[in-house]
Amino acid sequence: MNHLCISDDVKLGKDVKLSKFINLYGCCVGDNTKIGAFVEIQKNAFIGKNCKISSHTFICEGVTIEDDVFVGHNVSFINDSLPRATTDGRLQTEADWKVEPTLVRKGASIGSGATILSNVIVGENAVIGAGSVVTKNVPPDMIVAGNPAKILRKAER
Amino acid sequence: MNHLCISDDVKLGKDVKLSKFINLYGCCVGDNTKIGAFVEIQKNAFIGKNCKISSHTFICEGVTIEDDVFVGHNVSFINDSLPRATTDGRLQTEADWKVEPTLVRKGASIGSGATILSNVIVGENAVIGAGSVVTKNVPPDMIVAGNPAKILRKAER
Amino acid sequence: MNHLCISDDVKLGKDVKLSKFINLYGCCVGDNTKIGAFVEIQKNAFIGKNCKISSHTFICEGVTIEDDVFVGHNVSFINDSLPRATTDGRLQTEADWKVEPTLVRKGASIGSGATILSNVIVGENAVIGAGSVVTKNVPPDMIVAGNPAKILRKAER
Repeated sequence: MNHLCISDDVKLGKDVKLSKFINLYGCCVGDNTKIGAFVEIQKNAFIGKNCKISSHTFICEGVTIEDDVFVGHNVSFINDSLPRATTDGRLQTEADWKVEPTLVRKGASIGSGATILSNVIVGENAVIGAGSVVTKNVPPDMIVAGNPAKILRKAER
Repeated sequence: MNHLCISDDVKLGKDVKLSKFINLYGCCVGDNTKIGAFVEIQKNAFIGKNCKISSHTFICEGVTIEDDVFVGHNVSFINDSLPRATTDGRLQTEADWKVEPTLVRKGASIGSGATILSNVIVGENAVIGAGSVVTKNVPPDMIVAGNPAKILRKAER
Repeated sequence: MNHLCISDDVKLGKDVKLSKFINLYGCCVGDNTKIGAFVEIQKNAFIGKNCKISSHTFICEGVTIEDDVFVGHNVSFINDSLPRATTDGRLQTEADWKVEPTLVRKGASIGSGATILSNVIVGENAVIGAGSVVTKNVPPDMIVAGNPAKILRKAER
């Protein structure tokens, strides 16, 4: 009884490890990647190989995560910079807004509790400090932190 | 098998759409509103019509959300500004504190990862930036962001 | 149908109250403590008596929470200050990093949405404001808030 909701349209690679209470639909997850409890990954999200997606994290449509990426607990991705529930008094549908992409490059690490705005690229091996709010591109190999996130120093790898 | 825990005392309007892994008790949810995965809504919370309550969000007792409101993923509401687990060495009960209210007015949008303190009114059509911590009232039609959240500019609608 | 995943190796005290959708393994939880929905507590985490662990919170290996502590909703603890998914192209295992401890002393309160970095001690009866990111030790009886969290004033108890 692991309480998994994995839609038929999910593409799971070899040896993907799933914790419990997981909701996946329409996404791709690469070989050996681990997915923690209470994680939701939406359609048209792409997760690479050898990643760790930690508990309570939300990965939305439009997010691409390359190989070897660490995503901490309770991380939120975003695909709409001005979200609204309704247009002209009716609930918005997919026709009412355009998905804004996010790209996390190979080997990057995103700390727990971070929020990653849309239209952002997180560079290769970059590190996002825990609790940060990332509002613009993060250069490769750099550590950023804060709200809004600013460059602290070079990351070791 | 959608893993829904909806108490008998929950009042759901017409065409409410529920995702999976949801815990609702003693709350009211208006017509057409959508509720995402891993959401908890407590007793004496009121959600209007045509709202979107996104995944991983927590809505506590004392919160009123009017119609047409967008609540992002992983949003936390609060109803006690100085919470304590115990009083005089025993676990606090409801008799030990007074619920502090929060009001989100019609058409507002609350970005993902935001924390909304108690005793706050979010004005009509206002926008709370992702990852913000809202510590005081937000005027109508304004975008606020940061920790603590400050006014950035007027919002388009 | 409360959707509880409680491993056989979990030590629950007397009268522990569990909500729904909970994932516990290898941890200890003291008498009378309440645990909210969508909470995960990992192995080698220790929770005292008379605590409240609120919904959506993640408590990792290496965290010790003494008695009478309030932990709000959507709180993240951390045990690795430079997390990486992989080392030399293969997924990291427990052998690849050392758990960094966190200690929350008796009677403290941690606000909702807070992130608590590793190698930190939260002092007795201290209060962490909602949405804060705690990067260093918090003195007893003090209220801290912000990102990074700074001392605001003395806390009443």
